[in-house]
Amino acid sequence: MKCRFCNSPSYVEIRYPKKINLCKEHFIEYFEDRVKKSIEKYKMLNKDEKILVAVSGGKDGHVAAWILKKLGYNIELFHINLGIKGFSDESLRAVKALAERLNTPLHVVDLKEITGKTIEDIRGKKCSICGITKRYLMNKFGYERGFDVIITGHNLDDEISFILNNVLNWNIRYLAKHEPVLPAHDKFLKKVKIFFEIDEYLILKYAEAEEIPFTTVKCKFAEGAITLKHRDYLNELEKERSGIKLQFLYGYMKNRHLFKVEEEDFQFRECEVCGMTSAGKICSFCRVWKLYKKKRKKENNKGK
Amino acid sequence: MKCRFCNSPSYVEIRYPKKINLCKEHFIEYFEDRVKKSIEKYKMLNKDEKILVAVSGGKDGHVAAWILKKLGYNIELFHINLGIKGFSDESLRAVKALAERLNTPLHVVDLKEITGKTIEDIRGKKCSICGITKRYLMNKFGYERGFDVIITGHNLDDEISFILNNVLNWNIRYLAKHEPVLPAHDKFLKKVKIFFEIDEYLILKYAEAEEIPFTTVKCKFAEGAITLKHRDYLNELEKERSGIKLQFLYGYMKNRHLFKVEEEDFQFRECEVCGMTSAGKICSFCRVWKLYKKKRKKENNKGK
Ligand SMILES: [Zn+2]
Ligand SMILES: [Zn+2]
Ligand SMILES: [Zn+2]
Ligand SMILES: [Zn+2]
Repeated sequence: MKCRFCNSPSYVEIRYPKKINLCKEHFIEYFEDRVKKSIEKYKMLNKDEKILVAVSGGKDGHVAAWILKKLGYNIELFHINLGIKGFSDESLRAVKALAERLNTPLHVVDLKEITGKTIEDIRGKKCSICGITKRYLMNKFGYERGFDVIITGHNLDDEISFILNNVLNWNIRYLAKHEPVLPAHDKFLKKVKIFFEIDEYLILKYAEAEEIPFTTVKCKFAEGAITLKHRDYLNELEKERSGIKLQFLYGYMKNRHLFKVEEEDFQFRECEVCGMTSAGKICSFCRVWKLYKKKRKKENNKGK
Repeated sequence: MKCRFCNSPSYVEIRYPKKINLCKEHFIEYFEDRVKKSIEKYKMLNKDEKILVAVSGGKDGHVAAWILKKLGYNIELFHINLGIKGFSDESLRAVKALAERLNTPLHVVDLKEITGKTIEDIRGKKCSICGITKRYLMNKFGYERGFDVIITGHNLDDEISFILNNVLNWNIRYLAKHEPVLPAHDKFLKKVKIFFEIDEYLILKYAEAEEIPFTTVKCKFAEGAITLKHRDYLNELEKERSGIKLQFLYGYMKNRHLFKVEEEDFQFRECEVCGMTSAGKICSFCRVWKLYKKKRKKENNKGK
């Protein structure tokens, strides 16, 4: 197969909305154009914003940083060392390689230094605690350092398998909440998913085409079989009917208002422990890592 | 493995809500009890109702008829000869065998006699036309012969794969419409799905345990790969988490009101061609089979 636009061999077959084959060079152009169009469509970013990109070491965040840099945005990188054996070291290596290639400031925060513990140490649902932790630390860092927006690498496949999971479990509250841009409020920075509409497969192909450093090592605590089944299923459907994944997302966007039932009437306030914006007295980060105990101890020590 | 209640070998493993093994005899008891409980829970049927059971030749309708007869309901069988080569003959044979075993009246309606055509002859979406046709003919027959209720063999897997498909395509109108009992209105009879909550696999095991005659020949026009993928996916999830199929259905039932958006304000009326209840001037059956042309021809001939 030849590229649709030149005589070079096909590197990728795009299947939707039209079936076209693209060589490596034309694919890179195509991919960057798709991302640019997403950014415009959802008014995701401005060139004068100070942007913090979350990089875990995996392809999605790395490609996000890469392409934003290439498109001329003002970015810096943010990484959390979670202290997971056989994963965190490898991740850090990949992140450093990326920062060097991009010649971009890299900020690394060490979970153990902040909480006294690593993800390894914690009991219970590691994935959900890890999610809370990353969102919190990243937001706090960005807020304190004067960034305007946080970028994460969530892609189309992440979004739709999350939506599907919430439908299967009828988590109505979560179903109202997927969007490419979450506006800033209180001490929460604006959050943007630049790959909201972009297929994971294309991100991988772009990473390979551009020879972007990233690691494929997976966290040993990574989500279980069910999430993988959602992804496999949606990709199986996509094989039968090209575009169904994107159409599912668009249909969701059009109908998500149906799930906005209980108007959330509560006020955000400041966490009593850390002072960041919180829905309750103590924010979920401080609760999960039991930082109120630490604080109490400190106060008790002061009292003596 | 032994039966939980006796010393006989296990015939079926029930996985939800508790894991139990049952011998053939105790499984039959269990299955009939489950169906009885569904009938009570949703107030599906009364013993004094005249019940028409749709039998296609496949296991679901056959098991429905079998168990209702066993439970002492007043049933008769209804079958439509669709005129599909290699399928309809085999189906009719199975249906006749069932009627004989149950010693129950069987009514067979021939599509070609009514419309002049078979499903083979029709162009376009055969499955959806077949669905319209079956619903219409069965309702008309039941209405004219004084039946109170129509039973179809739709099972849990049918329901949830249909719901899932409607979610994937965001067919909001259809999403408000799944229920085990559809009350009668105008010339529409009450319609009941007694296997609304019953797993297809258990229906098959019951059919085999009771040695109920049925055919496994599939219609060559049967729904495509996508529907099968929905079913496979849901069964894969069930393997990971027992009960997820049923919980998905229950969650749907609890939340389906969310999809009732546009209040349907139209009046039902009588089809101008056949006189049955219809949403439009001409009912979908008469439209699909172009019976208005026939009528017009007749009238033209009369006029001469
Ligand atoms: Zn090319
Ligand atoms: Zn806090
Ligand atoms: Zn037994
Ligand atoms: Zn009609």
